[in-house]
Order: sequence, then C-alpha cells, then structure tokens
Amino acid sequence: MWRPDIIKQLEAIVGKDSVLTEKEDLATYAYDGTTTWSHRPDVVVLPVTTLQISSILKLANEKRIPVTPRGSGTNISGGSIPICGGIVLCTTKMNRVLEINRANLTATVEPGVVLQDLNNLLAKENLFYPPDPQSFLSCTVGGTVAENSGGPLCIKYGVTKQYVLGMEVVLPDGYIIKIGGSTVKNRTGYDLLHLFTGSEGTLGIVTKITLRLIPKPAAKRTIFAIFDDMTAAGAVVSKILANGIVPAKIEFVDNFVIRRIEEKMQIGLPVDANTMLLIDVDGSLAAVESEAKQILDLLNEGGAKIARLAKDDAESMMYWKARSAGFAAIYSAARTVIAEDVTVPRDRLSDFIKKLDEISKKSGFEIVLIGHAGDGNIHPSVFTDSREKEDLERLDQTLTEIFEAALELGGTLSGEHGIGLEKKRLLAKALDPRAIDIMRNIKGILDPNNIMNPNKIWENS
Amino acid sequence: MWRPDIIKQLEAIVGKDSVLTEKEDLATYAYDGTTTWSHRPDVVVLPVTTLQISSILKLANEKRIPVTPRGSGTNISGGSIPICGGIVLCTTKMNRVLEINRANLTATVEPGVVLQDLNNLLAKENLFYPPDPQSFLSCTVGGTVAENSGGPLCIKYGVTKQYVLGMEVVLPDGYIIKIGGSTVKNRTGYDLLHLFTGSEGTLGIVTKITLRLIPKPAAKRTIFAIFDDMTAAGAVVSKILANGIVPAKIEFVDNFVIRRIEEKMQIGLPVDANTMLLIDVDGSLAAVESEAKQILDLLNEGGAKIARLAKDDAESMMYWKARSAGFAAIYSAARTVIAEDVTVPRDRLSDFIKKLDEISKKSGFEIVLIGHAGDGNIHPSVFTDSREKEDLERLDQTLTEIFEAALELGGTLSGEHGIGLEKKRLLAKALDPRAIDIMRNIKGILDPNNIMNPNKIWENS
Repeated sequence: MWRPDIIKQLEAIVGKDSVLTEKEDLATYAYDGTTTWSHRPDVVVLPVTTLQISSILKLANEKRIPVTPRGSGTNISGGSIPICGGIVLCTTKMNRVLEINRANLTATVEPGVVLQDLNNLLAKENLFYPPDPQSFLSCTVGGTVAENSGGPLCIKYGVTKQYVLGMEVVLPDGYIIKIGGSTVKNRTGYDLLHLFTGSEGTLGIVTKITLRLIPKPAAKRTIFAIFDDMTAAGAVVSKILANGIVPAKIEFVDNFVIRRIEEKMQIGLPVDANTMLLIDVDGSLAAVESEAKQILDLLNEGGAKIARLAKDDAESMMYWKARSAGFAAIYSAARTVIAEDVTVPRDRLSDFIKKLDEISKKSGFEIVLIGHAGDGNIHPSVFTDSREKEDLERLDQTLTEIFEAALELGGTLSGEHGIGLEKKRLLAKALDPRAIDIMRNIKGILDPNNIMNPNKIWENS
Repeated sequence: MWRPDIIKQLEAIVGKDSVLTEKEDLATYAYDGTTTWSHRPDVVVLPVTTLQISSILKLANEKRIPVTPRGSGTNISGGSIPICGGIVLCTTKMNRVLEINRANLTATVEPGVVLQDLNNLLAKENLFYPPDPQSFLSCTVGGTVAENSGGPLCIKYGVTKQYVLGMEVVLPDGYIIKIGGSTVKNRTGYDLLHLFTGSEGTLGIVTKITLRLIPKPAAKRTIFAIFDDMTAAGAVVSKILANGIVPAKIEFVDNFVIRRIEEKMQIGLPVDANTMLLIDVDGSLAAVESEAKQILDLLNEGGAKIARLAKDDAESMMYWKARSAGFAAIYSAARTVIAEDVTVPRDRLSDFIKKLDEISKKSGFEIVLIGHAGDGNIHPSVFTDSREKEDLERLDQTLTEIFEAALELGGTLSGEHGIGLEKKRLLAKALDPRAIDIMRNIKGILDPNNIMNPNKIWENS
C-alpha cells in the first residue's frame, strides 16, 4: 500500500469509506474521456465538505503530494488524469444544489452537481443555464467551470465564464477564499473569477459556484437542412447572421456523419448529401416563428436540397438525437478517434476545411467534421488505431499539421476542451513566451509547491 | 521645468509637439470625470504608435517614473488621475479603426477610438457593439477596456469583457505582447485577456483591441412607464424577466429626476410620480412587436399610471434624451454630486432602496436614484458641496454607510466604475485579504517597479 501514514490521515479527514486504495478502484480513476493517456493515482478521496477539502490540501501541500481534482472525468484533453500519481480528489459526492434564486436569477451549487440534474431543476422553475457541453448528461458543474466549457448554445449565449458570478475556492495551501458574489456586475480589483474559470484545476478546488441564470425562452423551433455543398451551407450561415438573426444553435455535420446517422436511425437522410445543418431558434413565440420562416427562406434561396421546420418537440428531438448519434457514430467508427478542438475565425472556416481535406489526403487518416458552424469550432475528428505504434507517430505529425493550419489562419489550439495533457506540447506554438511566463508566475503565486494538478498546460510544469 | 533630460528623451520618442509641459496643458490632465480628486502630471505624452509606447514605458521603467494611462478622461473613480505625478500617457491620437470584419463579426481598433465613432461606423455595416457607458459620446474604447465598462444595454448584452477577443498590450517594461485572438472561443491557458480587461491601467497599456460584434438587431421599440410606487415598478421588472423576456434596457429614475426632466423638457411627465421606467426591446420585427405588447400588458396589470409605446424613432429618442437630461439634471442640481456605483443582487434592490432612504434622512444629504433596474445597479447619487469641509467629512461617513449597506445585502462596491482612487479605502471591506494579496502579487509579476498607474485600487500601492 502507498504511504500508509498519508492514507490514515486522509481516512481521518473524510472517513474510511471515502478513501479508495484498491487497485480496481484506482484503475477507474486512471483515465478520463481523453483517448491517448492514462495514469493510475495512488489514492482517491471523495470529500463531502469544503473543510474536508481544505484539510486534504493542507496535508498534500505540506507533504508535497500531487492532487488531481476530478468531477465525472468527461474531460477530453487529459485534465483529470493524475499523470503524476498522488491523490485524485473527486468532487462527485458534493452534489447539492444549495439555492435557486428566482428573483435574482442565480443558482448556487456544489461542484459535483451533474449539469443535467441542474438543468432539470431549473426547467421546473422556468429558468435556463445555457452552457451545454456534449457531456451534459454526466459532467459536473465544477468540471465545466474548471474547463470553461462551451457547447452548441454558445453562439447565442456564450461560454461558462459568462455565467460564473461567484465562487468559493480552496487554495492549494488549504485557505478557503470567496471571490465574486451574486451580482451580475462586479468591478472590484482584478478579475480572479475568470482566472479560476478555465484554469483546469491547477490553481485550487472550487467548492461552491454561483451561476447567473436567464429566463427560459418561451418558445423554440428546430430547422433541419441538407446541402450538396459545404461552401453553400457556410454562406447561408453567414447570411443568417448578417440578417440580424442569432440562432440558439447552428450545428454542422459532414457526409460521413450523415451516412452513419442514416445507417443507425433511418430517418430518410440523403446519404450522398454533403452537409447537414441543424439550427435552433429560441425566444418569444412570435420571434421564433418569424425567425424560423426567415431562416427557411434563406436556406432555400441558398441552395438547400432539403430545408424543413420540425413540426413539434418530438420531431425536434429526433433531429437532435440524430446529431448526438452522429457523435456516437464517430467514436464507434474507428479504434481510436481524436476529437480535435482547434478553432478558427468564422471567416476562415472554408479555408480551414479545404486545408483539412488536404491533410487528410496526404496523411491517409480519415478526418470528419461535426461541430458548431457559427463560431469556427467544427471539431475535426481524426480516425486511427492506438494499438499501431507507427500510426500513432504519424498521428502526432498530422495533429501538429492541423494545429499549425489553424494557427496560420488566426485560430486557436483549443476552443472548448482546454490544454490539459493533450496539447501542452503545442502551447508554445500558440502563445507568446512572455504570456506563458506570466501564466506560470501566476501559478507560482497560488501554488508555490506545484501540488495542484501538476504537469498540465505547460511542458515541464 | 521637470527633469529636462527625461523631457528630451520623450521628445525624441514622440516628437516635440506630442510632449506637453506647459502649466496650462498639465492642468487639463490633472483631473478626470471624478468629483473629488485631482493631481497635476509632470509631463503629458501623446504617442501614435505601439513602438513609441514601448519606448516610453522602457524609459519610465528604467527611471522609475510613474505612468498614468488616459483616454478621454471620462473615468469617474479617479483611474486616470496622475496621483503620483510623472507621465500621463494619453492615447487619444491612436484613434484608427484598423479593421471591421463583417464575415468574422469582429472589429480591431486602436485604444484612442471614441466609442461613438466606432458605433457610427458599425451602424453603416449593420453591426452592433453593445457596451454603452453613459460617456459613449467621448470615452475611448481603450478606456472602456481598462474599466470593463457597462451601461444600460448590459442587462441583455453583458459588459465589455464579454466582447474583448484579443489585444496587443505594452507591458510596463516595454515588451509588446499579443493575447487572445479573433476567435469567439479560446481556451489556451489562463485567461490573461480578462486580467487586463478591467485592470484600470495598472498592468500595461492596451494598444490594439479586437472586439466581438453582433449583427445589428433588425428592430427596436421603446416603452415608457410611470409608477406611483417604486416597489410596484420593481415587481413589474421582475415579472417581465420571469416571462422570459430580456429587454435590451430597463432604466429607472426616481421622482427627483422626473421633476428635473419635466422642468427642462416639458414632455408632460406627472411631476408627482414616484418612478419612471424606460424599456427598450430589440430583435426581429415580430419579436419586438410581440414583446413590447406583452410588456405593456404587464405594466398595465402591474399598476403603471402611464405605459406608452413610442410610436416611432423620434419619440423613442425623445424618451432617451429625457433619460440623459436626467443625468445632466443630477449633475447640475448641487455643487458636488457623488455618482455612486454600488450594486446589489437583483432580489435585494427594494431593501437597498429603503436603506438608502434611511441613510438620506439620517445624514441630511439628498440621495437620488437613476440607473439600471434589471441588474441592481441604480447609481445612488449623493448631493453635497465640496467647498464645505464639514460636509465632506460627513459625506465620507455617508458613503461608507452606503457601501456597507450594499455589502451587507450581498452587493459589491462597484458595478461599473471601478475602484481607482475613489474606493480604494474600502476595498479591504469588500474582498478577502488573500484576494487582495493575490491581486497585488499579480501586479508585482507584471509591474515589479510599480510604475503603471501607481497608488490605485489598493491602499499603499
């Protein structure tokens, strides 16, 4: 057994049942949603209070033991993999919704609340929390804050950091700090809230989160369209925006995914079609009716082969299930699938798609596209087989080419998924060295002993 | 003349005409929009390029000379007052709009661009940049970024930081760094963009800014309402939001301001009315027609004495002029007006208004209210006379009571205006000492010689 003295102290803090040391248990905390990495922790603790977390971090800080925070482990950049061993601190038992305040339009939750559980509670109150990563059925709110998660609704509603108003954080030395509050405007000193949001668990552990909510839109309609030509589909998306309409979602899938969806669901998609668009509009009833009509007109004028308004919620749900099936289809299409997250400026999307096609042809790897058409974040997924060493070497090279292509077009390494382990070798290509220097110094202020999720984001960290 | 050697070097960098040292010139840079502070700089420089700014900061850093950055000086928390003397670095000559990218929905500008000049250019392109501080006619975009400015449109559209995608910054040692980019999603390391946004010129000088734009809403309507009772007005605001309608603006003025507006404009306001609400809805034509109708119904049901839909743009503009006249009226109503910026959670607004009434009665100072009803940011303005020493002492005490009341209700020292000089004595009441410690350490990383806008935000800084 790993360091029995430490185990004993952890058991004294959280209780015997909340400390896992069996090989079988440790194995399940060795990985997250990321394809190519895993590493076993030495121990897993499941605290239920802020004070317990404070005690755990005090102990870890004193003994210089790495601590990797984790929610449901749906991270897909390796952020919740305990790459240095040590403690995995799992927040899933801290899953209380502490307050839903209708009058202030806020919710305060513990980090382990599953996003969809929160969504279900809010729906009953006619409230709405927009950030919607694909993992919403199982990811924790704490994880979405650590990763600053996005999702399809971001085009209209923005990402997680636009909804975080306040938090309680346990710093790496165990100090419990409150930052932000519950007002929608707050201008007191530097923005620590946004420093912690998206810091990938490297600066502390968020133990309470106050989120800004919005009233649930009264109505929603879904529009489904098929194009023979990706460029034409892209042009319509631009036209919709240019007409002053900001849809709630504009999702985009390519021919490969259309074929896979039809194979699985038989909903009558033309399997030779090049591109499918799935668009949601929401707002007041009059607004969605009018906007849906305008979008249908623009789709038809823009050369859509099919452009259809879902007649009711059931049909709308069928289309969105098809979209989700698309993702599942991608992951089952090859032994190893690398779901990439590079993002380019909206006006460079067609250039980027052309470049991806070239890279695919040159490398021989299939690259399929599914993602958010309105914000240049189209998640190119590369198919390979992680058992083949040669494949993996070529894969690294191919991914580097994809990143470089995105950066050349003014894009970014990651739109939503974060750096974690997956992209740290590339960070220096994307950022000014001084920016990395500033970030590392900030890390040094908050975590001088480098115990919080070490060896993430930067090389040699 | 102050340090002729430095003056000579500054002249070599920016040219003789762009260095001001005459007493008369220095006097005009001794103050900003803040009521109770002023301090003369030793020299004013007006650079036109990033490289010039880099050279100026290198020199200042080497010689340990304070540098206070400034745009139009509309700041109302003292942020652009050169309280330690030294150099005022004024960015107003760097006023080029470098790019408006319709396809990517972004604009890249220099810091000295006046916000309304940008707005006018964008309107021609059917684009929209929402942040709208009251100073929009003269404030610079750089200033709004330094202060993370808000305004009436924030209830629907959010504050400045939600629109800043990328920036070029000259760090205090002269290093020129690019952070962020031109994508709407970006997850590469810690969020330095939001660290600089709202840092009040204490971390560096922003020399280029890439802003996210949105398509201009196709239609807009203005609704005007009068209530006999502030609580009833507040209840209707909550009801509007609960019905899933998020208006573009919900502004609120009290009886004092109604009287002053009517005195100046004679538009038929009932001068005995307690509260006026001014509401804008925007979006597609169908949406605004439907939402305006719903809001009118809610206003009437909720006891509005008058609830009127502006029939056209001219009438809408008249109402918004009345709102602006209200602000002018406040400033001309007393020798000294302290426009406060404390903000409370939305659900505590009526408690806060009651408390302000008590404080006003106790202190004898008139306190009037005008501001943003939807987000708890109602700008209580305190009337006094800065020539009366006794008044000023009581004023300090009264302001402290207002801050403490807001903090007790879960509010914040500042919703929009920042800390600057005005509120630094109170920061320790609002933040955890460790939070201040972290902020000061971050300042230390970026500005170890403390030359950038020193003596702001924190005491003894």
